[in-house]
Amino acid sequence: MTNGAPAALAELKVRLQEIYDLNGAVAVLYWDESTHMPEGGAAGRGRQIATLQSVIHSKFTAPEIGRLLDQLEPYRAALADDHDDAALLRVSRRDYDRATKVPAAFVSEAALHSSAGYEAWAKARPTNDAALILPFLEKTVDLRRRYADFFPGYQHVADPLIDGNDPGMTVALLRPLFARLRDELSPMVATIATCPVVDDELLHRHYPEAHQWAFGEKLAAAYGYDFNRGGQAKTRHPFCVNFSIDDVRITTRIDEHDLAGGLFSTLHESGHAMYEQGVGHQYSGTPLASGTSSGVHESQSRLWENMVGRSHGLWQHYYPDLQALYPDALGDIPLDNFYKAINKVQPSLIRTEADEVTYNLHVIIRFELELDVLEGKLAVRDIPEEWHARYQKYLGVHSPDHRNGFLQDVHWFQGDFGGGFQGYTLGNVMAGQIYAAALAAHPSIPTEIAAGHFATLKHWLTQEIYTHGRKYEPAELIQRVTGRPLEVEPYLAYLRTKFGALYGVTL
Amino acid sequence: MTNGAPAALAELKVRLQEIYDLNGAVAVLYWDESTHMPEGGAAGRGRQIATLQSVIHSKFTAPEIGRLLDQLEPYRAALADDHDDAALLRVSRRDYDRATKVPAAFVSEAALHSSAGYEAWAKARPTNDAALILPFLEKTVDLRRRYADFFPGYQHVADPLIDGNDPGMTVALLRPLFARLRDELSPMVATIATCPVVDDELLHRHYPEAHQWAFGEKLAAAYGYDFNRGGQAKTRHPFCVNFSIDDVRITTRIDEHDLAGGLFSTLHESGHAMYEQGVGHQYSGTPLASGTSSGVHESQSRLWENMVGRSHGLWQHYYPDLQALYPDALGDIPLDNFYKAINKVQPSLIRTEADEVTYNLHVIIRFELELDVLEGKLAVRDIPEEWHARYQKYLGVHSPDHRNGFLQDVHWFQGDFGGGFQGYTLGNVMAGQIYAAALAAHPSIPTEIAAGHFATLKHWLTQEIYTHGRKYEPAELIQRVTGRPLEVEPYLAYLRTKFGALYGVTL
Repeated sequence: MTNGAPAALAELKVRLQEIYDLNGAVAVLYWDESTHMPEGGAAGRGRQIATLQSVIHSKFTAPEIGRLLDQLEPYRAALADDHDDAALLRVSRRDYDRATKVPAAFVSEAALHSSAGYEAWAKARPTNDAALILPFLEKTVDLRRRYADFFPGYQHVADPLIDGNDPGMTVALLRPLFARLRDELSPMVATIATCPVVDDELLHRHYPEAHQWAFGEKLAAAYGYDFNRGGQAKTRHPFCVNFSIDDVRITTRIDEHDLAGGLFSTLHESGHAMYEQGVGHQYSGTPLASGTSSGVHESQSRLWENMVGRSHGLWQHYYPDLQALYPDALGDIPLDNFYKAINKVQPSLIRTEADEVTYNLHVIIRFELELDVLEGKLAVRDIPEEWHARYQKYLGVHSPDHRNGFLQDVHWFQGDFGGGFQGYTLGNVMAGQIYAAALAAHPSIPTEIAAGHFATLKHWLTQEIYTHGRKYEPAELIQRVTGRPLEVEPYLAYLRTKFGALYGVTL
Repeated sequence: MTNGAPAALAELKVRLQEIYDLNGAVAVLYWDESTHMPEGGAAGRGRQIATLQSVIHSKFTAPEIGRLLDQLEPYRAALADDHDDAALLRVSRRDYDRATKVPAAFVSEAALHSSAGYEAWAKARPTNDAALILPFLEKTVDLRRRYADFFPGYQHVADPLIDGNDPGMTVALLRPLFARLRDELSPMVATIATCPVVDDELLHRHYPEAHQWAFGEKLAAAYGYDFNRGGQAKTRHPFCVNFSIDDVRITTRIDEHDLAGGLFSTLHESGHAMYEQGVGHQYSGTPLASGTSSGVHESQSRLWENMVGRSHGLWQHYYPDLQALYPDALGDIPLDNFYKAINKVQPSLIRTEADEVTYNLHVIIRFELELDVLEGKLAVRDIPEEWHARYQKYLGVHSPDHRNGFLQDVHWFQGDFGGGFQGYTLGNVMAGQIYAAALAAHPSIPTEIAAGHFATLKHWLTQEIYTHGRKYEPAELIQRVTGRPLEVEPYLAYLRTKFGALYGVTL
């Protein structure tokens, strides 16, 4: 190779490129499954994905990959840590270890249990049938403990689970952070609960679909989501998926009587998509070509959805356009009423419908329950009641049933117990810290947003975060971008300022 | 195995299933490429498809497949020819031989030439640049002769090329059939040319897209195309593609000033799709799970597009619905004017826009030129002028340029010279013969169609053709379905009756 790297690196890259492209193919199959596939296609699609994943698994866990990584170890050791090749070898080794340390028999057992659990959940949820689902959850917890044991040397049994989605993050780091956040948020929620309830009826008038679709895409394009390298489709549960750096799709759902639902979902997914589109092309075809963690990914979706998308400045510019599209519904609604409605705070039972202030309490409840169960402090059979107790304590609400209680999210019942939820709150915290750093670097950003310009912010995020792909682990990235370790203060300050002003209270 | 088949058959089926599913995955990638993929996705998609195809190729040409086929030969030989296992082993052997007899180096060379040829054609066509494209075509012809030589023992050099798309069909069989057709069609076209020209202006009024889309899908669903196992998307060039028996998609394009274009394209592709959806589920996951040849496939698209879709009976039932959708455009147009317009015969330069009577002459010109070149009777450099001469002779038209002459179709310039075009006319001829057999078996079909009922015809075609997949080769299938060898008479009789009545002449 021209840069003096060993021939083994070139060989490794050829193999990684093949795996990258096959992963892209699997992603297309998933995307089609959720967007266009007819009912009849399900069985065939299941087989196609399973077959392709088994091809990818055997290619990636091939002993040759291990040999090449071993062979390249002296080369990597001699490089600076932030050399691209060093990062490539570090991340490839990490992925290889995670893929090879778990025996195939365990993977099959977990996959079968995941399908069975999902089916049981789909039956148990509508009927609030805790008795039906709890044995599955017992088995899930057992599987998760066994999974963790494939990565010996952990400090907390949840660490290897968390590390799968948020590399380097640990219970030791997250528990105090989340406790601090909980202790600050709970009183904020209580204070806001003393204020008059915001009327958001205006968001539930009739908003025909075509305009919602066009307006959401217009705003996403203005943000900098490149539709020549992406596109939006309809789906039941919105998501973002990348087939390559230059083909990153988003999906949304539109409800003609819920203006905010579809719009902010589009903005949220656009944040994820801009991250993936912004990865440097030199990483294409390698494991570096993706966002670095669930948390950092979520920081970008939440930053564009909330800090930018629900800001007063943005709507100073865009609200007249929206009013022009829907003169009957919005013609007589002043900007400030609209702004208050899209930022309404109200403790509720359902995480996915929660506002910016209460959202993290939903996540923290799940995170704490996971740790308690994994540590053996809480029995699985006691989750349903403990759920109610924490909702009462942190949010002051109580679900009359399990459907809107511990059965509301699919995660646990698909086998993802421990390691899945923390990314949502990590994302919010990081978004606060990153956005504060962006404003410090470019104080003009709010003024630009109020004029409908997003290029400074988008460019800064691209240079600081997107372009690096998986080169830096989350903690290192945050330190580089903000000059500080991960901390909750900027996020809390953002919430206090914004919602204090909105509700006319001191938070 | 419970039916006494050897264990090797079970092992073969597992391997074939894997290949079947990976082929389904490739088809999804192609479908997305033509329907939803943004411009930026092209490079990644090219790699994904190439990588996946190379995985499929190595799995299918693996020596184990050859050994299993050899091992199963005594089992196959002891079975009746029409036993499903015999058919499976016969077709698998055929595919395996075709895949293994052509060296990988040749496949690469041809693939590279195909891409280069396509790019040259895309440049040459708009500028009528014969000099630019002819060297590519020379090389294509050379590659096609070399390809044929991987299948020694052929009678005509085009036979192995034709056999790739229409198994068992040969120049010896097709040449006289097509000559007969040409000699009958040319005078029919000449006779119709003496009649007053039909005014089809009514088809080019303004027909907003949404109604066109809905009406086309309504008719396709009435035919029996199952949208729960399919679906329609927009594309530049309409096509049908199957991911499995239970997921068969079609695409169409809509022009708001061309009512017939989109509608008959939907009906055409629905014919292809019903064939694929109708394959017996016992063949799922094997090479038998598809239509048996280009010609038989085209017979089903043309039968549903033309014999049914452009019939007077169908429009007796559906024309009032169409008028109700477009009262401004069609309110004052009588059924018979509409019927004449959608069946207008007029010699023209472009194959894809040709009517039922002139269409086959376009195809036969290509087929004859291919044979002349492959036989060395015609030099590649003389194709452009010979093209003009035959259009003048058979259709009485002359293109002022090459763009609407030999450069109009992409086939030759993508490497498909010889073996690609005959299927279109074979399809029409077979459609005539099959439809006559259907009417003989169920004389009530025309009356049912005039009442908007298609179940008898659809059911008969499913039982006679669709359900068998690739079990029978085309010639055998036609003999079984119609009781006669392939022949042009029923098709000619259909054209004479229909267009004689339409134009009030004896054809």
